[in-house]
Amino acid sequence: MKGIHGGDIYHNHVDIDFSINVNPFGMPKAVESALHETVTACSNYPDIAEKDLKRAVGGMLKISERSLLFGNGASELFMAVVHGLQPRKVLIPVPSFYGYEYAAAAASKSIVFYPFRKEDGYLPGEDFLEILTEDTDVLFLGNPNNPTGRLLDKTYLKKILQICRQNKIIVVLDECFMEFCGEEFSMVSEISEYENLLIVRAFTKIFAIPGVRLGYLTGSNAFLLDKIRRHLPEWNLSVFAQAAGIVCAEQSDFVRETVHYIKGERQFLSDRMKREGLRVFPGEANFILVYSEKPLYENLLEQGILIRDCGNFRGLSKGFYRIAVKSREENEILLRAVEKI
Amino acid sequence: MKGIHGGDIYHNHVDIDFSINVNPFGMPKAVESALHETVTACSNYPDIAEKDLKRAVGGMLKISERSLLFGNGASELFMAVVHGLQPRKVLIPVPSFYGYEYAAAAASKSIVFYPFRKEDGYLPGEDFLEILTEDTDVLFLGNPNNPTGRLLDKTYLKKILQICRQNKIIVVLDECFMEFCGEEFSMVSEISEYENLLIVRAFTKIFAIPGVRLGYLTGSNAFLLDKIRRHLPEWNLSVFAQAAGIVCAEQSDFVRETVHYIKGERQFLSDRMKREGLRVFPGEANFILVYSEKPLYENLLEQGILIRDCGNFRGLSKGFYRIAVKSREENEILLRAVEKI
Repeated sequence: MKGIHGGDIYHNHVDIDFSINVNPFGMPKAVESALHETVTACSNYPDIAEKDLKRAVGGMLKISERSLLFGNGASELFMAVVHGLQPRKVLIPVPSFYGYEYAAAAASKSIVFYPFRKEDGYLPGEDFLEILTEDTDVLFLGNPNNPTGRLLDKTYLKKILQICRQNKIIVVLDECFMEFCGEEFSMVSEISEYENLLIVRAFTKIFAIPGVRLGYLTGSNAFLLDKIRRHLPEWNLSVFAQAAGIVCAEQSDFVRETVHYIKGERQFLSDRMKREGLRVFPGEANFILVYSEKPLYENLLEQGILIRDCGNFRGLSKGFYRIAVKSREENEILLRAVEKI
Repeated sequence: MKGIHGGDIYHNHVDIDFSINVNPFGMPKAVESALHETVTACSNYPDIAEKDLKRAVGGMLKISERSLLFGNGASELFMAVVHGLQPRKVLIPVPSFYGYEYAAAAASKSIVFYPFRKEDGYLPGEDFLEILTEDTDVLFLGNPNNPTGRLLDKTYLKKILQICRQNKIIVVLDECFMEFCGEEFSMVSEISEYENLLIVRAFTKIFAIPGVRLGYLTGSNAFLLDKIRRHLPEWNLSVFAQAAGIVCAEQSDFVRETVHYIKGERQFLSDRMKREGLRVFPGEANFILVYSEKPLYENLLEQGILIRDCGNFRGLSKGFYRIAVKSREENEILLRAVEKI
């Protein structure tokens, strides 16, 4: 049973899950403690004003608390953006996270897909800037992109943002995997420069807490944020999400160590998978896109290892797989399993 | 600082919170244990198919799993209903829960309010059935209603549903406080009779877990449910919500004891508050609507007790307060504080 998303450990027998891209270090100990301590607080409503959380995350990002909106995971924010902006036309480059299309389908009149091409290394091609025309209302852009792992050059990204601003296109920049690359690639510090920019991020991946549901949106355009906020339910964060977020905002060392570790392991895993005869695409995130003629998904699942079959990604086809960069020990188990195939 | 909702213990000094209407027994021990056990599962995505939760809640309600939709609290479901049905006109009797209006404002073209009147005991008046005309698309109806606590006679409720069916009005029946009254007043067992009926309930109140965020919607009209589902984010339930819901579904003894306890304490609290000179309105829920000329909210807050000032409820005015029915010990503390005023 292959779904549209990874992480389906509920309907498969799985020993190691390489299909979801969360931090191999697992959730920080301090977050785990905070979650335990929060159990007794479940009898209270969460703080509807999200006061402490806003202060913590605003501080972490060095931005104004007023430029923050929190969501029950990034997926709720994508949905609220589309509900709030009611775009006629949404542009989605593919392959990319299915959640953009899912959200756009809820309230956009039309969706246009731009194909990232293999020959461009799954980066935007020369024709990309030309299609950013006035008839488009919203552009979804993952950076780094999922499942390709490609990170955009910042100069090029700014060019995209400028053209979009000229043509009144709102750019929803998905930075949910940005922490694995490093903050120097992020646009968060420059939100005040682009009133057409909305950045969506999550605590899900970097702090390995997809089960908690906590994401945030930031942008400098108060008018847009207000439009979006009206489409979020009133208490959209659990007490667990608020408590976890506050502690996560203090984990800068943890994040730095992760960046370093992922860089090394991505290189190790890529090199070794190439040696095993897989086609490995270049990427900068905590997961790797590969291609194989062999039925990798089925063969690995037989060995208790779940990877993401990307055959159902728009813009990819049978034979593409996404593999998370995990701990050295787990990566070696994967490599031994690949060897056997 | 008085908000539009109760439960604001974050911006007040509060020893006892009578402003939110959760079970005075607190959360069941089994739920607390399940939440602790779930902390380690936060590194997994929640089950997007909600398989175990659907089975448990379907079993509890004795309905098909296919007639269930889960939400991140009832408030998310109200919002999704409005996004999904895109009503031109929504009818909301008032005073009632602000969340109906909040949700309707997100995607409805117009909102019409019907006033429950004091002289009708805050029940629908003789003119109510007459205004259920074809130009209305959606009716929100709380049963028991909040903040009045009034429960509708089932024969009368069926009359409403029949007229609405004739006139193609979708009825969103909010039964979030129903468990405190008893299942015999609920319409859940009769959803198959009314294709225009959507019932929203929550685990929030009866299991005292507002911090967890878990509600559900049930109805027999698969077409409507599908329309609504498309407006819910993909992973809208945390692993905590799923785990808590599964355990809550097994707590029938806890619910039965609660009904019995609330009945006695409501009577006790009502009688004693009347003796203190408050005007107490009749109601059947786990909270009581009262009226006083004195500044009850401010005077009680000075004594560390938070109640719900209903002055900002549409259809009520200064002097109306909602007070939760809590444990005998807490109720007596409240009564002593009222005495002092």
